[in-house]
Amino acid sequence: MIASENEIDVVVKRAEAGFQFLQQCNVIERAKLMHTIADEIEAMGTVLIETAHLETALPVGRLEGEKARTVNQWRMYGDAVRTGLYTEARIDQNLGGQIDLRKYNGGIGPVLVFGASNFPFAFSTAGGDTASALGAGCSVIVKAHPAHVRTSQLMADAIHRGISSYGAPADIFSHVLSDSLEIGQQLVKHPLVKAVAFTGSFAGGKALFDLGQSRPDPIPVFAEMGSINPVFVLPDYLKNNVETFAKQYIGSLTLGQGQFCTNPGVLIGLSGERFDTLKAHLRAEIQTISAGKMLHQGIADHYIRLKNERVECDGVRILAQGKANTEEVFAQAILVEADAARVLSKPELLEEVFGPFGLVISCADRHEMKVLMNSLAGQISLTFAASEDDMREYQELFTIAKNKCGRLLFQGMPTGVEVKYAMQHGGPFPATTDPRFTSVGPDAIKRFIRPISFQNWPDEFLPKELQDGNPLQIERLVNQHWTKD
Amino acid sequence: MIASENEIDVVVKRAEAGFQFLQQCNVIERAKLMHTIADEIEAMGTVLIETAHLETALPVGRLEGEKARTVNQWRMYGDAVRTGLYTEARIDQNLGGQIDLRKYNGGIGPVLVFGASNFPFAFSTAGGDTASALGAGCSVIVKAHPAHVRTSQLMADAIHRGISSYGAPADIFSHVLSDSLEIGQQLVKHPLVKAVAFTGSFAGGKALFDLGQSRPDPIPVFAEMGSINPVFVLPDYLKNNVETFAKQYIGSLTLGQGQFCTNPGVLIGLSGERFDTLKAHLRAEIQTISAGKMLHQGIADHYIRLKNERVECDGVRILAQGKANTEEVFAQAILVEADAARVLSKPELLEEVFGPFGLVISCADRHEMKVLMNSLAGQISLTFAASEDDMREYQELFTIAKNKCGRLLFQGMPTGVEVKYAMQHGGPFPATTDPRFTSVGPDAIKRFIRPISFQNWPDEFLPKELQDGNPLQIERLVNQHWTKD
Repeated sequence: MIASENEIDVVVKRAEAGFQFLQQCNVIERAKLMHTIADEIEAMGTVLIETAHLETALPVGRLEGEKARTVNQWRMYGDAVRTGLYTEARIDQNLGGQIDLRKYNGGIGPVLVFGASNFPFAFSTAGGDTASALGAGCSVIVKAHPAHVRTSQLMADAIHRGISSYGAPADIFSHVLSDSLEIGQQLVKHPLVKAVAFTGSFAGGKALFDLGQSRPDPIPVFAEMGSINPVFVLPDYLKNNVETFAKQYIGSLTLGQGQFCTNPGVLIGLSGERFDTLKAHLRAEIQTISAGKMLHQGIADHYIRLKNERVECDGVRILAQGKANTEEVFAQAILVEADAARVLSKPELLEEVFGPFGLVISCADRHEMKVLMNSLAGQISLTFAASEDDMREYQELFTIAKNKCGRLLFQGMPTGVEVKYAMQHGGPFPATTDPRFTSVGPDAIKRFIRPISFQNWPDEFLPKELQDGNPLQIERLVNQHWTKD
Repeated sequence: MIASENEIDVVVKRAEAGFQFLQQCNVIERAKLMHTIADEIEAMGTVLIETAHLETALPVGRLEGEKARTVNQWRMYGDAVRTGLYTEARIDQNLGGQIDLRKYNGGIGPVLVFGASNFPFAFSTAGGDTASALGAGCSVIVKAHPAHVRTSQLMADAIHRGISSYGAPADIFSHVLSDSLEIGQQLVKHPLVKAVAFTGSFAGGKALFDLGQSRPDPIPVFAEMGSINPVFVLPDYLKNNVETFAKQYIGSLTLGQGQFCTNPGVLIGLSGERFDTLKAHLRAEIQTISAGKMLHQGIADHYIRLKNERVECDGVRILAQGKANTEEVFAQAILVEADAARVLSKPELLEEVFGPFGLVISCADRHEMKVLMNSLAGQISLTFAASEDDMREYQELFTIAKNKCGRLLFQGMPTGVEVKYAMQHGGPFPATTDPRFTSVGPDAIKRFIRPISFQNWPDEFLPKELQDGNPLQIERLVNQHWTKD
């Protein structure tokens, strides 16, 4: 455990030394390092899964999938780094007596990553933030999530084995174990820390963001702070899909006890017979759902408190509940309903309840639906359970929706975030503190880069990415044309 | 003149409507709009140059060059937008039953631009910030700089002629005339404003940044706040280049009365005979420089006050001055000197004096030079007057320098910022509030984009940039491969 300010200083200074090392590594070397780390994580036996299962209560199957995803992230991001996509090499040569100017992206500096509780692998010690920061050429300090310390330590050990087997100094990655909030805050304030990544609650993320912005030298703080991921169900679609949609929605809402930032916590439709039929199906579906064990007592307590607050609100009615389980740490799923007019007059109803909690909102007419859409805060995702006819009919909704979220879905459910180039996992405030970036997919690397130009710089002293002859064979924009020459 | 909060609200709501229009415009349409605006600016006759000359005291030749640069910026950024470089279309198709996911960059929303005083064309109403924001697909509100209102109005009229001739609504560009600080602040705080660009003083930029970060929903504020652009002169280089270097340095220092953010305000060398010889040449050079008229009285007063403060500092000695001119608004160039030890004990000496003010710092040895390099705040640029032998010998300096600035120069002078893809005009705080972006060159467009993903979205409702068949023929990353198919 790290405790004193002095120890923090030692950790960050080491990370600065690690950053110096990484600045000398080119994209091929960084990609190789990332693959080596991926191999070490992959090679870990059942102890990793068992430990994580004990610490998080997540099912073994889910954890195995998450481990595979995590390994894949390291490899995919490494391959992306290798192509030079994030190097963005631009070369404007000395043509006709002009200056010779070359630019590329280097790492921004030591990056502080806060592990998340709900993805012990993919968003934690060895998760996407760590992989993308290392890929960008930054050293990383992970503040492990206190809810799964042993899992985190196993991952940190694997990363260090990878680093050592690659031949890099251990300083490029540090793992800080502490359940003190203050330690995290001191790390954010340390002058040598140059960026922060966080996934968790609004209160936690916003506090870190404010801390980062109030430093003498403000730094980027990428906080993903949750979302209610509204699902709009439109009338033509509902004509033929009531049953499948009800199953799909309740399945997504209660998946993993609703502990996903893409959990579809709000369902919005137009009052009327069809919507009433849908509600009946939703009621039937949720009643079949068993209570599940949540990640830890704190999350379970928080869920129960918020759920009860909502249920007691004027104008909020319980539609149905899942099966009860009075054991500690278990969460009973619930669907409540309210009229749009009520929600519009009490916007707190549109705040996230982390867990298997769904709010079904009835709009009196399409105008009210549009007003409700307009009133939404920034979201990770917005889903339309719609037919193509609905799309044509409700065009005005989509125009607004584009400015409200990072990802738009036509049918389907927002849970199940695929790790792809085209993924945008991030949305306007308060979903995240910076909607210009994603925390999932190789583009997550962009968060941690910074461009540097070299003017008339002698070739032998340039980074390899910018040297004549393109020794790394990456795509470069040379005199305004893409080439590997 | 705009005065009331109500009028501000009207302007911003119009900009929001303009943004809605631009969201429907694809890259080809936006590029065409930008070329149309460029043509209108180019077509303006001598009245533009004459007005600007009267308002800014800048020489006609310089203004003609700046006008050509401004026209070129609109065209070059338009061409860049046209290629899809900033659209970053990524398509991961539905292969083997996966989801179909497509992502592109849209505009972030209405952008507020503050005109700068020192570039009445290139960094003002029709400058790079406006061009890059429109290129990104954002509507723009310009708060004109009060020091050249008539010039700004001529430019705003040209932009509106271009918009009208293209057939877009006037709302995509608004021009706010006011010399009230409060109006600017209210604009930054308006909920519909989504990003801010500013070029000017540290005090002004930092205040706007803090305002932007303390909004209920923080927004990016890109403030370029000045720099001292240190020039390190190394011993081997000095052997053969004393005379040419002295001319070059004094020329750059006093160019345009030193009113550039890339003005080389600090010169650093190793004490000794060679450096003394250089100082003698610098003295001789600066004494030939006539006093020039500054942009406006406020800047001239500020220059004189700061210059006098520095001269009165303990340990600061006057090396030489340019020719005097006691007329109002004229600035006399000056070179002062100090030892590195003194500068290290009084870091305020390394703050910018906007104008033809140079501080020559003597380091006792290379260790002290390294310590001084380490003590530097973030800079737009760092220049090495060095030979290749010096580069080899002083490698440790360059390693530190990379983390201190946005642009590194080998020989030459930092003034004369070319508008190129490979230009990085921006540096670590306090040079700018966000070193991850440039304000010069097409990459300036990146400041105002935001990615949006579309999952399983029907082709006909996708933006053209993402549709099957690639109707706009832009470069896209499809299933991890670049293609125009």
